[in-house]
Amino acid sequence: MRVAIVGVGQTKFGELWDKGFRDIVIEAGIEALEDANLSGDEIEALYIGNMSGGRYLGQEHISALIADYSGLTELHIPSVRVETGDASGGSALREAYLAVLSGMYDVVIAAGAEKVTDVGPELAMDIMASTADREWEGFVGATLPALYALIAKMHMERYSTREEDLAMVAVKNHKNAINNPKAQFRREISIDTVMNSPYIAEPLKVFDCAPISDGASVVILASEEMARKLTDTPVYIDSIVQASDYVALQSREDITTMKSVVYSARKAYKLSRISPNDVDVAEVHDSFTIAEIMAYEDLGFCKKGEGAKLIREGETEIGGRIPVNPSGGLKACGHAVGATGIRQAVEITLQLRGDAGKRQVDAEIGLALNIGGTGGTAVVTIFRR
Amino acid sequence: MRVAIVGVGQTKFGELWDKGFRDIVIEAGIEALEDANLSGDEIEALYIGNMSGGRYLGQEHISALIADYSGLTELHIPSVRVETGDASGGSALREAYLAVLSGMYDVVIAAGAEKVTDVGPELAMDIMASTADREWEGFVGATLPALYALIAKMHMERYSTREEDLAMVAVKNHKNAINNPKAQFRREISIDTVMNSPYIAEPLKVFDCAPISDGASVVILASEEMARKLTDTPVYIDSIVQASDYVALQSREDITTMKSVVYSARKAYKLSRISPNDVDVAEVHDSFTIAEIMAYEDLGFCKKGEGAKLIREGETEIGGRIPVNPSGGLKACGHAVGATGIRQAVEITLQLRGDAGKRQVDAEIGLALNIGGTGGTAVVTIFRR
Repeated sequence: MRVAIVGVGQTKFGELWDKGFRDIVIEAGIEALEDANLSGDEIEALYIGNMSGGRYLGQEHISALIADYSGLTELHIPSVRVETGDASGGSALREAYLAVLSGMYDVVIAAGAEKVTDVGPELAMDIMASTADREWEGFVGATLPALYALIAKMHMERYSTREEDLAMVAVKNHKNAINNPKAQFRREISIDTVMNSPYIAEPLKVFDCAPISDGASVVILASEEMARKLTDTPVYIDSIVQASDYVALQSREDITTMKSVVYSARKAYKLSRISPNDVDVAEVHDSFTIAEIMAYEDLGFCKKGEGAKLIREGETEIGGRIPVNPSGGLKACGHAVGATGIRQAVEITLQLRGDAGKRQVDAEIGLALNIGGTGGTAVVTIFRR
Repeated sequence: MRVAIVGVGQTKFGELWDKGFRDIVIEAGIEALEDANLSGDEIEALYIGNMSGGRYLGQEHISALIADYSGLTELHIPSVRVETGDASGGSALREAYLAVLSGMYDVVIAAGAEKVTDVGPELAMDIMASTADREWEGFVGATLPALYALIAKMHMERYSTREEDLAMVAVKNHKNAINNPKAQFRREISIDTVMNSPYIAEPLKVFDCAPISDGASVVILASEEMARKLTDTPVYIDSIVQASDYVALQSREDITTMKSVVYSARKAYKLSRISPNDVDVAEVHDSFTIAEIMAYEDLGFCKKGEGAKLIREGETEIGGRIPVNPSGGLKACGHAVGATGIRQAVEITLQLRGDAGKRQVDAEIGLALNIGGTGGTAVVTIFRR
């Protein structure tokens, strides 16, 4: 049995001061229901990727809260929060997929949502650091930018990757976001913008880091049979694989590769009987520019150590051999933490349906890579129209 | 296809000052693996019910952390945290069940764990309140005991339930816990102990409230075919149903019933083709004594309003018509929040296998009820040997 995406919705990502957590989930949900031409009472189960409602909002148990505010309470449908750091959205998608695959449900919502700007930047940074190993990394002061800076340093040392190469990732993603009405930063930047921005954790500068954003994204999944009734343009989840790795960098043999990504990508390609060359479009987890470079390598879009070459030669631009992050990625579309994995699925769905407007690429097979922390979790999804 | 429990393990519940979060999960996991006669590398996926690693430990992304500390990292298996307030354990069990049912996995671990005593009691209380509606209840000062006190008041008013009836629940559960080596409180108490204890939120006194505890519980699930190879005493999950309800009490038509419980129980009975009378043993969510009285009614063990009569007549004692909480329940075994739903599954499994020692009841069909907050989420599971 196959599982299809039959509807997508999302809020704009950014600093959504005028909206509460409940509001943004509902906004994205209504858009998805309208897109699928479904009413709420046809939804049989809810999955919500959310990293830290507890610390950002003082609210755990948001699963029931969302079912409540969706007006679905009288149906008493099950609603579950799924959390794997900032891979929560990808994991929620996978749980929703398994729920349909189990035969228990025909129509299920996978949502992702995070409201981060209600706390100040220092606390927000500490909350993000809680996706790394608190005891071995966080307590000694390592933030996520610091950890990714270590990774970048090692990658630069070993593979001659330059700061300018990292900058090119940010430039490409900002350029793509101009054509994404839901993106947080819709303005072009230059290599100089990035290179002249201050260091956050050397070699990573302000413009090497994705923002953390408010936002919500929703996809509606249906069994193949139901999908055929609902839409002429289903997008199938061909395979979805999640993998874990050591959480603390110190435990890893090599920090310039993420084994969770390598493993989940290989397995997904195998399940989908494709090779990396068959992927027409990808959304990857560029929480930091170095992460996109490593994703090229770990997903097999190029050989290990040649990620920088790929961005230099323009192969991952729209129009290139394998366009990556046509949405603008986490860097420019924004990183609404638990929403990101679902937002990636929204983008790939739009791309495969031909609904991506000015950022449309020609694609039959799409891939999404969502990462938790520094790679303790990775979720790779292969989509097919 | 049916799904079976083939191994169980759990730590003692209580104030585990000498152990860290990672330690307790591993301890319970090893016990479960030994019980199932499996080695760790046969596990294909991990689900972890945990309510608030973020606030209790400053650690999100505990899913990967547990995979890491389990020594399973090199296998890169998927590990997912599931959260629905203090129903997180029940929800993790359900996700693990769906994962096996999907055909994707043959052997999956469902764990539950919480380490709560590393923060002080005031903060711990606030964290528990985050399972209620933060904006409509928590911010105006309503703690969980306060909300359950409102429920108890209304129940007493409408159904002539007395404080002494509530006390009898605590007395029964303490008595049962004496024979549970994993229980937090293994000493008998009297009605006077409860009645003379100070009010926390009238009419609920200290001894009407379950403690919040450190602890971890693990069950290993397997497909029917695999279960037959692994054990002569599989316990089947016959049905597992999760339901939601309004999170804030103010939104509910009637606070003396939990619609999420009524709905999930009815559906579970229907799926299992049984009536409440067929249940031989039950573990229910007695976070407060009133919750056990209401559970009797909402699960259909008696008519609405007659819960107090059931406890008065001794029908829910070991040896009674329908023994409830032979483990000691949340009240005396302890309430390790996200672990509780899994601990209930452990107890029912031991009871159905005939491995419950001095607290053994004669049972073929068991039921577990795990609740999130004040009933925003309920998970009802029917087990069969």
